[in-house]
Amino acid sequence: MVIGGDAAGMSAATAARREDPGLAVTVLERGPDVSYAACGVPFWLGGEVEDIERLVAHDADYFRERRGIEVRTGVEATAIDPERRTVRAGGEDVPYDALVVATGARPVRPPVPGAGLPGVHTLRDLESARRLDAALRERTGPRVLIVGSGAVGMEMAEALCARGLAPALVEAAPRLAPGLPPEVAAPVVEALGRTCASARAAAPLERLRATGGGALVATVGGADEPQDLVLLGTGVAPRAGLAAEAGCRLGDAGAILVDRTGRTSVAGVWAAGDCATAWHRVLERDVWRPLATTANAQGRIAGRAIAGRPERFAGVLGSWVSRVGAVAFGATGVDVAEAEAAGFRPAAIVREGRDRSAYMPGARPLTVRLVWHEPTGRLLGGQISGEGEVAARLHTLAAAVAARMTVRDLAELDLGYAPPVAPLRDPLELAAAAAIGDAP
Amino acid sequence: MVIGGDAAGMSAATAARREDPGLAVTVLERGPDVSYAACGVPFWLGGEVEDIERLVAHDADYFRERRGIEVRTGVEATAIDPERRTVRAGGEDVPYDALVVATGARPVRPPVPGAGLPGVHTLRDLESARRLDAALRERTGPRVLIVGSGAVGMEMAEALCARGLAPALVEAAPRLAPGLPPEVAAPVVEALGRTCASARAAAPLERLRATGGGALVATVGGADEPQDLVLLGTGVAPRAGLAAEAGCRLGDAGAILVDRTGRTSVAGVWAAGDCATAWHRVLERDVWRPLATTANAQGRIAGRAIAGRPERFAGVLGSWVSRVGAVAFGATGVDVAEAEAAGFRPAAIVREGRDRSAYMPGARPLTVRLVWHEPTGRLLGGQISGEGEVAARLHTLAAAVAARMTVRDLAELDLGYAPPVAPLRDPLELAAAAAIGDAP
Repeated sequence: MVIGGDAAGMSAATAARREDPGLAVTVLERGPDVSYAACGVPFWLGGEVEDIERLVAHDADYFRERRGIEVRTGVEATAIDPERRTVRAGGEDVPYDALVVATGARPVRPPVPGAGLPGVHTLRDLESARRLDAALRERTGPRVLIVGSGAVGMEMAEALCARGLAPALVEAAPRLAPGLPPEVAAPVVEALGRTCASARAAAPLERLRATGGGALVATVGGADEPQDLVLLGTGVAPRAGLAAEAGCRLGDAGAILVDRTGRTSVAGVWAAGDCATAWHRVLERDVWRPLATTANAQGRIAGRAIAGRPERFAGVLGSWVSRVGAVAFGATGVDVAEAEAAGFRPAAIVREGRDRSAYMPGARPLTVRLVWHEPTGRLLGGQISGEGEVAARLHTLAAAVAARMTVRDLAELDLGYAPPVAPLRDPLELAAAAAIGDAP
Repeated sequence: MVIGGDAAGMSAATAARREDPGLAVTVLERGPDVSYAACGVPFWLGGEVEDIERLVAHDADYFRERRGIEVRTGVEATAIDPERRTVRAGGEDVPYDALVVATGARPVRPPVPGAGLPGVHTLRDLESARRLDAALRERTGPRVLIVGSGAVGMEMAEALCARGLAPALVEAAPRLAPGLPPEVAAPVVEALGRTCASARAAAPLERLRATGGGALVATVGGADEPQDLVLLGTGVAPRAGLAAEAGCRLGDAGAILVDRTGRTSVAGVWAAGDCATAWHRVLERDVWRPLATTANAQGRIAGRAIAGRPERFAGVLGSWVSRVGAVAFGATGVDVAEAEAAGFRPAAIVREGRDRSAYMPGARPLTVRLVWHEPTGRLLGGQISGEGEVAARLHTLAAAVAARMTVRDLAELDLGYAPPVAPLRDPLELAAAAAIGDAP
């Protein structure tokens, strides 16, 4: 049995059935939707994706009819009895032989008065997106406040601009996009500045109150600002309560601790996805990195495990990417502070380059930052931003980090070149060459 | 001393001076230009680059004044005397302590009658580009024939279309773009078909003859076709004669054989770039792969070596990339036939994917082919084409091949995902997962 019908849960169910077509697999999903792309929600809300149904990879009928998986939507699991191997759901005790907990994560509301008021939205699943969409259509005025300048906050700023609104975005940290180092954040912040949104850093949300008629007042950095709608982009936390009550040990950030085959500390119970920890390849410990890619991979691992073919999860690098306007940005591996905390002696370098020969029209800038272990040169991670292709360059860096390449190895890679599509020396190569004292 | 003032030669001269600022470095270049981007020529001829001077990274004065390198253009070296350590050039014997031969490659004319006639052009350096440009301006009629559907032939087809011509492109091989496997070539051939050029495979050039007034008749596949200008894109050969006459051993394809520090078989003589062999990381032997990236890297190695800091060249993967219309294409590592010849037992797989989530507008197709050693899963190479980002995905594959990753390692990489810039599972990951029997 699987609790939770999104990325990790449906991957687990599908993998289990593929591995052993004789297995009876049931998925309990408390919401109405399964197997949806939560990461696509901002792009539906902004109108780039026309129909929210396009965010659903496969609906419940597909899994029932084509995969032979019993999917029960609208059914919430409220307790696990690992002794009797039953799950309490919909007023009955449903028996299982093996259980995968894939309960995901929930949005975190900041600990300020009024954070739970009507008109204060969070974004996670399709239901929350539909609620926000309805509220945006029904709002009584044009003032929208976005709290937080992480990827979701910035994606939503752009989405709301596309809807004709001019949202204000406030970030409590001293600078915008604090998840990226300053040099890599700079092009992102510039791109945010080119949207219609007004964005401010060092602007903590201190209080929200309702003023009647659906209107709100937000106190930000000491000043009261009237708002018609507030969207919190202030992070998520693992939904680990159900598993914890069943005795599962928790790990990093309160996520369900799993081994590399997805097994929890409780016999017969596996966990996968945003509710669970994951092995980090660089840090070499179990961390919590709620990402759809991890959820998919862990789901497959757990599914195979319960079908009798346990595998070791290769682990995460925490690779992520996002976009504001024409500027994409993201990271892989670890940054300096995290590397230091893990006992590395990190060094870092930033280089700017272009995505093709500078003399070609349309050559676009890229900012590359590399982080490595100074004594050995081993690459630990990096961050990239710019209008040029960022995602696949992060793929390259992810491969280099996973392979434990040194900065010299990266500088010495033999990369393709053609003036209209790739520069003679890629920004990744330039940064790596500079790291070994070898380049302009 | 350095013979040859393009990529390898100027890299060698610059690296030597950087390593040892006391060295007296002379570069002899027979043409008028140094340090130019020969690969950019089609884009100047097609008008994307307005000024041919933009293809010159640095002119001779820059190297003289800023780098302290004595650059002599228009001076051809005609003999090397390795005993006396002199180079015959411009009527004098110029002494050297250490010599880098960077004489590059020359275009190959097919062995057919009339291949050397006036009006039959090849393309290599800026001078050849200026000659072709002048001939295109002065031509008496609109009929242009391009021979060969390699990267240069296809780039030039597009360039000539941009000039308002409708060239015919003929390829002797049974199919167009024969340097790529059929599935990867297909999107390239389609893109070529969307240009104004007419392209035919299995169409060997058999003869050229002049018909007076600058016009030509090309015999292709038995049929006579009148032409006003012919451009040969039929490959290049190493310019190794000077070094061979001085006693340097030759290797693959008649290129000057060098060891991994750039040293030839003759004392005091190094070689680098398109005239020389290069160590291949997968084949683990010295091969000839004339590419600007290799020339640059080998030039640096040779320059450091003559300055007293020999290093081992990491070797090539033969990575290359090109573009026709909106479709980029390229390869890294080795293909099946080459792998077999080297004693591997290769397997290959092709998968199509998108460069972002399929539901996002503008999602662009990519075709990925992976080649691996079947008994161990070790990646040996691959080819990619499509409208999505190809170059940086080839970078990723190059990193994986260089790191001796297996297809499983590639399938298990943790890659960034965001609907507008990267799909949940990258086409590289999908292909690798399919290779281990693990995916749709």
